[in-house]
Amino acid sequence: MSKPYVVGIDIGGTNTVFGIVDARGNVIASNSIKTAKHSKIEDYVNELSAELMRLIEANDAVGKIHGIGIGAPNANYFSGQIIDAANLPWRGVIPFADMVSAKFGIPVTITNDANAAAIGEMTYGAARGLKDFIMITLGTGVGSGIVVNGQLVYGHDGFAGELGHVIVKRTNGRACGCGRTGCLETYCSATGVARTAREFLEIRKEPSLLRNLQIEDITSKDVYDAAMAGDKIANEIFEYTGKILGEAIADFINFSSPEAIVLFGGLARAGELLTRPIREAMEKNTLFCYKGKTRLLLSELKESDAAVLGASALGWEAK
Amino acid sequence: MSKPYVVGIDIGGTNTVFGIVDARGNVIASNSIKTAKHSKIEDYVNELSAELMRLIEANDAVGKIHGIGIGAPNANYFSGQIIDAANLPWRGVIPFADMVSAKFGIPVTITNDANAAAIGEMTYGAARGLKDFIMITLGTGVGSGIVVNGQLVYGHDGFAGELGHVIVKRTNGRACGCGRTGCLETYCSATGVARTAREFLEIRKEPSLLRNLQIEDITSKDVYDAAMAGDKIANEIFEYTGKILGEAIADFINFSSPEAIVLFGGLARAGELLTRPIREAMEKNTLFCYKGKTRLLLSELKESDAAVLGASALGWEAK
Repeated sequence: MSKPYVVGIDIGGTNTVFGIVDARGNVIASNSIKTAKHSKIEDYVNELSAELMRLIEANDAVGKIHGIGIGAPNANYFSGQIIDAANLPWRGVIPFADMVSAKFGIPVTITNDANAAAIGEMTYGAARGLKDFIMITLGTGVGSGIVVNGQLVYGHDGFAGELGHVIVKRTNGRACGCGRTGCLETYCSATGVARTAREFLEIRKEPSLLRNLQIEDITSKDVYDAAMAGDKIANEIFEYTGKILGEAIADFINFSSPEAIVLFGGLARAGELLTRPIREAMEKNTLFCYKGKTRLLLSELKESDAAVLGASALGWEAK
Repeated sequence: MSKPYVVGIDIGGTNTVFGIVDARGNVIASNSIKTAKHSKIEDYVNELSAELMRLIEANDAVGKIHGIGIGAPNANYFSGQIIDAANLPWRGVIPFADMVSAKFGIPVTITNDANAAAIGEMTYGAARGLKDFIMITLGTGVGSGIVVNGQLVYGHDGFAGELGHVIVKRTNGRACGCGRTGCLETYCSATGVARTAREFLEIRKEPSLLRNLQIEDITSKDVYDAAMAGDKIANEIFEYTGKILGEAIADFINFSSPEAIVLFGGLARAGELLTRPIREAMEKNTLFCYKGKTRLLLSELKESDAAVLGASALGWEAK
């Protein structure tokens, strides 16, 4: 008798969200804990396991969990480890999948958050039925999950798919957290949009709604609100961001000729403000043989469920 | 009783080379015809088929051919067609695989020449045993064949893997045959090296062995010879070429985290002159999590056999 549920765990810098999911992608129940509360990984795993067990018991799911899927920054699918994740409190190499598996006696599979999002989108969302697509997550950073011929691309070491770190400006590029300069994510993440806002406001002299805010505190949400209110500079910030992302996507298409690019994450909520300039840049820059073939889609997963759903989809293949 | 041979056909702009290959990668016999002799595709297929049949009969291989594999520019694996190949004399959409299959009653598989080279290298060459690598062919243009998890990446339409058309210069890039500017192949192909030579000789004032040649006639081979003779400008041309290619490769690694990059084609024969600056640029530009993991290899296939071997490897999967 096959087990009807999986568990999805999404580990973010602030919150760890976990839930029980059925085969149709319904989140039966979910809960969360603070990721950064415990500086010792053992304490964190203890609390997470206790809370998850409580959730499983409360939902009559003991013995009914097929597998546990986990999405986390810098997580490696092959080794089950989380390795020096900048946004998490624990340093070094953490055998996370093994630690969780030991608590529950259930198979655990782990991958990075963008890969989990791609699997979630393929299983339950906008990429259902697609065998070749690229998921691009636009949050604090830019992540990606690449699906080729129905399979996630892990590469020889499990670290494939870091399209946020493709270099889009070879000279005078912005400094990136990775130690290099000019990475895509320094321009096209939520923080990249905020950096662009600060640059534009310094260089330009026109009035802008954004000038009512403290320049260091401006977020991509502020830029969005101003753009929707008709602010010229705010609109140009989205033009600039979309152009860079569209040019980069046109290059990505050369690699795997995907049927679709799926955008996910906070910045993707800007919708047409961002997708129109992306589409324009894609049309202008895509190689002739790919032209007009690759659709630009927005994630269809409900934001609040997406992280858990994505991770949970991995649980079905855990063994 | 399984059939012991495959046929490989490599269609180049000048010559079409074809041969009978056994399971260990020995080219039993081969021959060639001029590709451009026939402006009508039917006449070309007739001559190719007659010559191939003669070869099969002469080598007692009638009824012993498992499949025919073909590598050709702009060939599509899914449709079996050759579509508007700039270097071939026939325009439009040519159902090439079907045309050849109809002549022999043997399954035919076709793909572009760079993909065929990748399969050849995986089956018989430097990429034996590798499941994740990128083949980069450095000839008149720059082509690529990408292998992920042991499978060639075809994309949703069969056209994946055009890394020669990734944009490496967004502003003031060189005009490319594809109609855009700044493509990798305008810098890092054999013709790209010749263009760099012309640019360097015009801008710079130093003496150079290359100044003894007609500037429009300079080839990448001339630049190689001059560099080997210690010519400063010629050496700098390879530095320049290798740096651009190494930077591009560092970006490619973000995509599929390959175990190796395999270089193939005329320009790859420059060896250390090219690979040293490529390696330096890779080391400098590769994202930390991939650093030092991706080997740079040169094709191990004998140049004269490589094209036929690569195409023939496809013959094993023809059905």
